[in-house]
Amino acid sequence: MINRIVPGIDDDKFIREKAPMTKNEVRVVTCSKLNIESDSRILDIGGGTGSTSIEFASLSPEIRVTVIERNRDSYELILKNIDKFCLGNVRAIHGKACGDLPEEEFDRVFIGGSGGNMEDIFKWMEIHLVDGGTVVSNTVTIENLFVFTKLLKEYGYSDIDVTQMSVSKGKNVANLTMMIANNPIYIVSGRK
Amino acid sequence: MINRIVPGIDDDKFIREKAPMTKNEVRVVTCSKLNIESDSRILDIGGGTGSTSIEFASLSPEIRVTVIERNRDSYELILKNIDKFCLGNVRAIHGKACGDLPEEEFDRVFIGGSGGNMEDIFKWMEIHLVDGGTVVSNTVTIENLFVFTKLLKEYGYSDIDVTQMSVSKGKNVANLTMMIANNPIYIVSGRK
Amino acid sequence: MINRIVPGIDDDKFIREKAPMTKNEVRVVTCSKLNIESDSRILDIGGGTGSTSIEFASLSPEIRVTVIERNRDSYELILKNIDKFCLGNVRAIHGKACGDLPEEEFDRVFIGGSGGNMEDIFKWMEIHLVDGGTVVSNTVTIENLFVFTKLLKEYGYSDIDVTQMSVSKGKNVANLTMMIANNPIYIVSGRK
Amino acid sequence: MINRIVPGIDDDKFIREKAPMTKNEVRVVTCSKLNIESDSRILDIGGGTGSTSIEFASLSPEIRVTVIERNRDSYELILKNIDKFCLGNVRAIHGKACGDLPEEEFDRVFIGGSGGNMEDIFKWMEIHLVDGGTVVSNTVTIENLFVFTKLLKEYGYSDIDVTQMSVSKGKNVANLTMMIANNPIYIVSGRK
Repeated sequence: MINRIVPGIDDDKFIREKAPMTKNEVRVVTCSKLNIESDSRILDIGGGTGSTSIEFASLSPEIRVTVIERNRDSYELILKNIDKFCLGNVRAIHGKACGDLPEEEFDRVFIGGSGGNMEDIFKWMEIHLVDGGTVVSNTVTIENLFVFTKLLKEYGYSDIDVTQMSVSKGKNVANLTMMIANNPIYIVSGRK
Repeated sequence: MINRIVPGIDDDKFIREKAPMTKNEVRVVTCSKLNIESDSRILDIGGGTGSTSIEFASLSPEIRVTVIERNRDSYELILKNIDKFCLGNVRAIHGKACGDLPEEEFDRVFIGGSGGNMEDIFKWMEIHLVDGGTVVSNTVTIENLFVFTKLLKEYGYSDIDVTQMSVSKGKNVANLTMMIANNPIYIVSGRK
Repeated sequence: MINRIVPGIDDDKFIREKAPMTKNEVRVVTCSKLNIESDSRILDIGGGTGSTSIEFASLSPEIRVTVIERNRDSYELILKNIDKFCLGNVRAIHGKACGDLPEEEFDRVFIGGSGGNMEDIFKWMEIHLVDGGTVVSNTVTIENLFVFTKLLKEYGYSDIDVTQMSVSKGKNVANLTMMIANNPIYIVSGRK
Repeated sequence: MINRIVPGIDDDKFIREKAPMTKNEVRVVTCSKLNIESDSRILDIGGGTGSTSIEFASLSPEIRVTVIERNRDSYELILKNIDKFCLGNVRAIHGKACGDLPEEEFDRVFIGGSGGNMEDIFKWMEIHLVDGGTVVSNTVTIENLFVFTKLLKEYGYSDIDVTQMSVSKGKNVANLTMMIANNPIYIVSGRK
């Protein structure tokens, strides 16, 4: 069977309700920055709709994704999306990072939302992110951008990459192509 | 053996000389928009450094990439990069689109540079791009953006997507993170 | 009396209803590109809320602004805004460019919306825009961008400037500064 | 005599040498955010080429601009530009903020470069910026963006505005319009 081998699930394939969602192009670049391998154990903190977890998990059946989300509605939305995509390699946890995280090792950590506990997450990663593992944080606020970048340096991460991505999408209006902006995202990554 | 399964080869891995190069994040999104499958036959028109061809070919050994480039220096640079990455599934042609293109079918066509022959390329694709196949053009000029989008409509392509992507990269200057802009790119795609 | 001498009326000072509005920063740069002088006669085609006309007219009491708008609701909204800002130097016309334009000369022409009659407007400007006068068009579609730029060249305009401006604004969310994007605008200008 | 009454001096009118320069569109929006009045006393910290000071001073002969620059070459470049524009209302100081600043009051403060002394500048402004006066900082680094925004809040400034502006300029290449990006700038302002 021939399969799509690149990330990029259409935005409208996800059940969205009211949760914010990482859009297609940003999700694709996030997969790349995470440097996902065919058997990576990935933690997704602050899952939202679950779109990033589902994108990660779709890349290979041997990938194992754990997603944690503290908001009850979002958690249930993630369950719906996992169900819709028939994925057996995503586990969802309703709870807070880091208190409700499992005592396991991860190869990759993606932070879509930190809930203000960024320093706690770095302390937790000292034990649970493997050496050489990659962490990526997508931020839309200038404060989280600053704090995450600062912590990457303080905790001695290497290969620090700060990428701002602004995407606009053409929308057909009266047979003209009107460009509509998505909000700019900072994608910041480092290697432990 | 465990492999990276997402696109995103570091820019500085390529031999660049004076040719313009599609930067990392744009190359990654281009792979996604091309919707590459594990055995796709891909044509890359206007190869530049060869970075896109190499990115495509690295995704799977069964992918077959043909790259055509009319500039002699760029053509030789592409050969050097193919050699550096030890890829057996990229074929480079020194010549012009469409006159020097082989009489073969392709599943995917990527246009990095058209040299002003955009309409010719569409005529050529009527015969050589498989039905259901995808074409992607990356343009940096407002004229090529307009012409390519117009031709997609005239030739009846579906799923037309116009994405503008502006990427800035953090550069360490005196221990501060200064944001440096890459030029904005329009990534336009359609399905035959 | 001491006065503000730079453009930049706050967006929320305008009555907006459902009409699209040129945002603060784009309006400011538009004034600059129009190279407005203290006694300029300015035509504003496709007024929307009237925000650009009001910005122009506020720069000097000797400036005379004519704004034409074909949509009845928008026309009435413009009248309300002129009234709110107590400006005696803005005249509003309910009608179409160019058929309903007065037989007068103008020093500056601003095109916020063309309704598809861009070539007609250029023909009209051959007679009604003074030599050395400036025209500026703000476009959000790739088709109007292409057509306007092409016409500037065909009609022999000089000092052609194409500027794309993408603005994001910080919004206070839970004491963090979240960046929210406005749609990207192309501001294109030329001198007759 | 009729005068240009909007900011926006062409970039190529300035003598530039090797100093970084605030580009046209950003300079124009900076004038607007500073809310300059016809008799404002303006301090420009970190003058670079002097382009912002000259833009401010050109708006009205009653405006008085003081520009301070610690780099000797840049200081001399500023003197050359003041001379070129024949402005009698700009005073240049070779020295550091805040130690070498005069014991005077200002209505507006523009910070183009802080040299790392941002908190010192806020302490100095407690005494030397009039109540109701406006401060604007243009930053290209995520650290200065964070620090300046934080200090605005800590020192109780109101009407805080965070604007990111990304400008691309069309360049004529082989009769096509290629879009070339300027680096993104954060323009942050507040009222004391």
